[in-house]
Amino acid sequence: MSLNTFGHLFRVTTWGESHGPALGATVDGCPPGIAVDEAMLQHWLDRRKPGQSRFTTQRQEPDAVEILSGVFEGQTTGTPVQLMIRNTDQRSKDYGDIAQKFRPGHADITYWQKYGIRDYRGGGRSSARETAARVAAGGVARAALASLAPGLTITGYMVQIGPHAIDRARFDAAQIERNPFWAPDAQAAVEWEGYLDGLRKAGNSVGAVVEIVASGVPAGLGAPIYGKLDTDLAAAMMSINAVKAVEIGEGMAAATLTGVENADEMTMGPDGPVYASNHAGGILGGISTGQEVVVRFAVKPTSSILTPRRTVTVAGEETEIVTKGRHDPCVGIRAVPVGEAMMACVLLDHLLLHRGQVGGNRGRIC
Amino acid sequence: MSLNTFGHLFRVTTWGESHGPALGATVDGCPPGIAVDEAMLQHWLDRRKPGQSRFTTQRQEPDAVEILSGVFEGQTTGTPVQLMIRNTDQRSKDYGDIAQKFRPGHADITYWQKYGIRDYRGGGRSSARETAARVAAGGVARAALASLAPGLTITGYMVQIGPHAIDRARFDAAQIERNPFWAPDAQAAVEWEGYLDGLRKAGNSVGAVVEIVASGVPAGLGAPIYGKLDTDLAAAMMSINAVKAVEIGEGMAAATLTGVENADEMTMGPDGPVYASNHAGGILGGISTGQEVVVRFAVKPTSSILTPRRTVTVAGEETEIVTKGRHDPCVGIRAVPVGEAMMACVLLDHLLLHRGQVGGNRGRIC
Amino acid sequence: MSLNTFGHLFRVTTWGESHGPALGATVDGCPPGIAVDEAMLQHWLDRRKPGQSRFTTQRQEPDAVEILSGVFEGQTTGTPVQLMIRNTDQRSKDYGDIAQKFRPGHADITYWQKYGIRDYRGGGRSSARETAARVAAGGVARAALASLAPGLTITGYMVQIGPHAIDRARFDAAQIERNPFWAPDAQAAVEWEGYLDGLRKAGNSVGAVVEIVASGVPAGLGAPIYGKLDTDLAAAMMSINAVKAVEIGEGMAAATLTGVENADEMTMGPDGPVYASNHAGGILGGISTGQEVVVRFAVKPTSSILTPRRTVTVAGEETEIVTKGRHDPCVGIRAVPVGEAMMACVLLDHLLLHRGQVGGNRGRIC
Amino acid sequence: MSLNTFGHLFRVTTWGESHGPALGATVDGCPPGIAVDEAMLQHWLDRRKPGQSRFTTQRQEPDAVEILSGVFEGQTTGTPVQLMIRNTDQRSKDYGDIAQKFRPGHADITYWQKYGIRDYRGGGRSSARETAARVAAGGVARAALASLAPGLTITGYMVQIGPHAIDRARFDAAQIERNPFWAPDAQAAVEWEGYLDGLRKAGNSVGAVVEIVASGVPAGLGAPIYGKLDTDLAAAMMSINAVKAVEIGEGMAAATLTGVENADEMTMGPDGPVYASNHAGGILGGISTGQEVVVRFAVKPTSSILTPRRTVTVAGEETEIVTKGRHDPCVGIRAVPVGEAMMACVLLDHLLLHRGQVGGNRGRIC
Repeated sequence: MSLNTFGHLFRVTTWGESHGPALGATVDGCPPGIAVDEAMLQHWLDRRKPGQSRFTTQRQEPDAVEILSGVFEGQTTGTPVQLMIRNTDQRSKDYGDIAQKFRPGHADITYWQKYGIRDYRGGGRSSARETAARVAAGGVARAALASLAPGLTITGYMVQIGPHAIDRARFDAAQIERNPFWAPDAQAAVEWEGYLDGLRKAGNSVGAVVEIVASGVPAGLGAPIYGKLDTDLAAAMMSINAVKAVEIGEGMAAATLTGVENADEMTMGPDGPVYASNHAGGILGGISTGQEVVVRFAVKPTSSILTPRRTVTVAGEETEIVTKGRHDPCVGIRAVPVGEAMMACVLLDHLLLHRGQVGGNRGRIC
Repeated sequence: MSLNTFGHLFRVTTWGESHGPALGATVDGCPPGIAVDEAMLQHWLDRRKPGQSRFTTQRQEPDAVEILSGVFEGQTTGTPVQLMIRNTDQRSKDYGDIAQKFRPGHADITYWQKYGIRDYRGGGRSSARETAARVAAGGVARAALASLAPGLTITGYMVQIGPHAIDRARFDAAQIERNPFWAPDAQAAVEWEGYLDGLRKAGNSVGAVVEIVASGVPAGLGAPIYGKLDTDLAAAMMSINAVKAVEIGEGMAAATLTGVENADEMTMGPDGPVYASNHAGGILGGISTGQEVVVRFAVKPTSSILTPRRTVTVAGEETEIVTKGRHDPCVGIRAVPVGEAMMACVLLDHLLLHRGQVGGNRGRIC
Repeated sequence: MSLNTFGHLFRVTTWGESHGPALGATVDGCPPGIAVDEAMLQHWLDRRKPGQSRFTTQRQEPDAVEILSGVFEGQTTGTPVQLMIRNTDQRSKDYGDIAQKFRPGHADITYWQKYGIRDYRGGGRSSARETAARVAAGGVARAALASLAPGLTITGYMVQIGPHAIDRARFDAAQIERNPFWAPDAQAAVEWEGYLDGLRKAGNSVGAVVEIVASGVPAGLGAPIYGKLDTDLAAAMMSINAVKAVEIGEGMAAATLTGVENADEMTMGPDGPVYASNHAGGILGGISTGQEVVVRFAVKPTSSILTPRRTVTVAGEETEIVTKGRHDPCVGIRAVPVGEAMMACVLLDHLLLHRGQVGGNRGRIC
Repeated sequence: MSLNTFGHLFRVTTWGESHGPALGATVDGCPPGIAVDEAMLQHWLDRRKPGQSRFTTQRQEPDAVEILSGVFEGQTTGTPVQLMIRNTDQRSKDYGDIAQKFRPGHADITYWQKYGIRDYRGGGRSSARETAARVAAGGVARAALASLAPGLTITGYMVQIGPHAIDRARFDAAQIERNPFWAPDAQAAVEWEGYLDGLRKAGNSVGAVVEIVASGVPAGLGAPIYGKLDTDLAAAMMSINAVKAVEIGEGMAAATLTGVENADEMTMGPDGPVYASNHAGGILGGISTGQEVVVRFAVKPTSSILTPRRTVTVAGEETEIVTKGRHDPCVGIRAVPVGEAMMACVLLDHLLLHRGQVGGNRGRIC
């Protein structure tokens, strides 16, 4: 997990800026013989694509992915898979008037301080467009998982927008694809629509909480002490733009539980231990238990807003800023497919690591 | 950040089990010429040491650290610093009766499934004793920071035990060292004392929330995209035993804020931008802003409790378990010095990375 | 140094196959503010380009490099620099008749055994075309070195083809660019021309020895014990296609020297120690001395030859093979610019590492 | 392969100085369930131990290894194995008179320039004593190979001392353990004895060439492009003290061969391809062929000699130096077990990598 690369054996390096010629991902360590093609990756990219509703940025990009290497006659070869997405809709003039001002809550000030580079065209490397490359790489990871861990599924959805959370009693996975928010609760989707319309008209934005669940994860994945499955998931999710917190299982609520409450009691089923609950989120001591792996993360509100905020310029003058551009009122919405992609990459990586280092599960309960 | 090592340039590899001959840390990448001695490291270890109050494990160990390499005539040489702590109080008989049973919420079941090893003597590698090695390594990091970033301070404290949070209005840093909970709120400490006494007598345990703040952190630290400062902090904290969530700045609460509220507005001060608030927790786009870096993490309740819980045995039989041993009623208390140590390691690592990759801050606001 | 990536802080990941759509390099860790453009990189690529004489492959490719990211307004930004070279002259029909046979001395058999992939179109990932990506990345490294270590120069040349070595007494650096062999000895170039013409007509090929010298390298580069400067140079050069040996300074001849002969005696000059000789090749204990860094490597003869050799097929049948294609009679010739590129990458990497870990040289001799 | 660690999945970090309290190796990534004990490791250390003949340093150390972690009830647990060797015979007064002078050909000058540390007690981190830790770690690797690749054997021996090479026609593996030089040629051993006695009396030293052969290596090991098996072997061997060159198979001689000569022709045997020769040294395209893996390396003469050499002091004064201490007249002798240990580590590492990334060989020839 370092710099522009994540992963140990399945290593993804993303590259590219929001307004450069292209962006993409160099995917190294995918096992050979996995069926991968551009249509398969495009499927996942299309789910993340901007401009699909009035609740995400109106930037119109096909986000068409091109496989430049590592796939031969429809199968991975074991060599690096290079994925490229051309940037096509680069209305950089939109950004011209903010070239000298720093947006509060935005990375342009810290990139400037660190690198002395002012890519005023729309975030440059810190733009959420970088996450398109992650989604493409995640598509490769999903293809490999389909082959190496059949039955493993990954599902992401929104559980909260601003102060409005879903009602878990109404949870219905079938709803997730039926609304522009990935809401598993149809009623919440209706509420969010009104709430976000109001915010958008007011030139404001809001945060969100995304949950990613993987089921069918084999027990035994995770490399203690510093490559724990939850450690790597925390890093993977925290690396997504605008994420400010990551929870596993009970997450912050674990602080309020007693040991008696938090114990996931076990009985014996036909195929091994059966857990009465999943406070742990499917991970104990950094290693998967075989239960659902449950991760949540909080996304802060989009920092580019139409409401004026006080700030300073590169020249050190005090001023106000209004960010016009084409921004998501709730950037958390587009983070759902990104979180899924990160989960896929982390799980595949640990599957390969476990295969290499241990060679299969060694302890049985029987 | 991989396996038993964390860090990019300042790399710490911990080793050892709770009931083996010794445990320790191999610290690689410490710059040369840093004044380090055993007394200095012992100071930090003594803060974490068990058995200091009735609220932490009664295991009695001096936790005396020995420097085996990398320091010559009181200074680091630039070569690996090997830190060893002998295990002395290994009452492994306490664990004998649970050798065949898995503790709910404990790593023994996943270690067994993965490795086929049952170190019944008290957690083995997954024991919280491993964190002593982190605290020793953190002492080396603090020494280097004192030299390379004078003025940088790191302070950890407890902000919540079970449902009882501190009152921020009563925050008093001077209190932190005056009670056994690292509470910055004297009244909360009194409440926690009664609450924990009750839990302990009931054979129960509880979770907690720890906050670590670093001030005096220079702007510009953090290596986007996957070595962001917050990414590495999330990984570092999540790798601590029993941690289930990590927050930066507003953390989960960022989901409930609007963009207008969340914007940390700026004005111009004599030495650069002055922020009106710190929702970001001192990090934008993965790079430090120069404000306080604020991290919180939730620790789940100790899973080894005296209240019987249903579980299974290695042989697959259903049974109940009561864990006698000498366990912390709130393992979160001892996590405070550990979180501080991880913060020190991550900050030093990024300071070195920044110096290597960029060579000093390049952009000025003036 | 792992898998498809080399380097610690200046990290180069190459990707692509000889007959896929494109190949390239993802260059991560280049410091910001370095002047880089496509013309500058093209200069180095043109030196390596095939088809420039009858002594290298007749494949005709412009090898035009495109910068897809990491450079803004003519300067590096500190983010990944993606370099892409489209494959244009892919006469894969040439290879059709050898699709089932393994070339003796060629990687196709081991790639098949490992990956189960038979990229019969011309070597796939194991083709020497991969080295074009290295040369492009090396161009970025050279640009950074020009800024960070002014006065540092890197020069590669051929010292031996088959049994014919240069005469060191005739060494003339000005000759290197004046013949198709990078020979620093005009007379050797004439001899080699006749020798290679004979081999080419006979459907044969031959090996070579390349020497790369860096002067102006500051003392203090190299990270003992396993990131020594010579260790990393050995790995870098051995990773080049067809290289079978790497020497530093005296190299294999060091075995025949006595300690008295091998001692590079020192006297004191105005700017520090002056060495009477350079048996060490500019590296002691893995750290640069400030003398010239001297590396040599042996390249085996091209394995694709027109002379029939006995081999087997994928189906396990015994047969003979003649490789038509368009191959280099002496692949060592094109290895000269590649060796230079690797030297540039390793030196820049260690310069950044040293800056990060040590922060400048700490010991003076005065 | 970085800094004080080598290996990708089987990662060995050595630590310690020649005259500090102890040195050792942190071995991370050893698979669980491997039988390892101290006696087994001691066997390998005893082969490298100094003071066994008058041709190696007269330093007398038991080099007793202690396993501090990672082994439970005689088996590896999958967690880091910490190996410690106490330094016991530290006659540092021997070095007192050279505390201010730099030995020509020795690392003390470059360590000084880089780190500003003068560990005058005998080489500090750059001492060949560090290789004891490698040999111990190599013992763990051998134990794992015995389990995962039964039939794989590793044999190291001396092929040349000074100008005197063995006669390959007299090669007899049974001789290797019967003379103090690891010579596979009894007559060469007699010659070397006389030759080295002469050098020793003259206060001189000499270089050597060591060859390490692994047989029974499965086809398919090696991770192109930058983690090639030969790349990692080159790095591993070059990282050994005093090594100046590494050869695979034909090595430097490959430069003199034609393609017709160099082709390792194949016929079909009952179990797959049979090679008529092994110019490649068992590696094609960075991947093992299943033939013997053959590596050679040249070791320069010991730089600490009794013959006066011109040098300078820390204060910049010109002087002469005579190094008394207890040094090996031919440090190459003790490098034989070290080279074997490195071969074991690299092969195990690639076996685990291959298992993780590819999951077993995928292509058959039948």
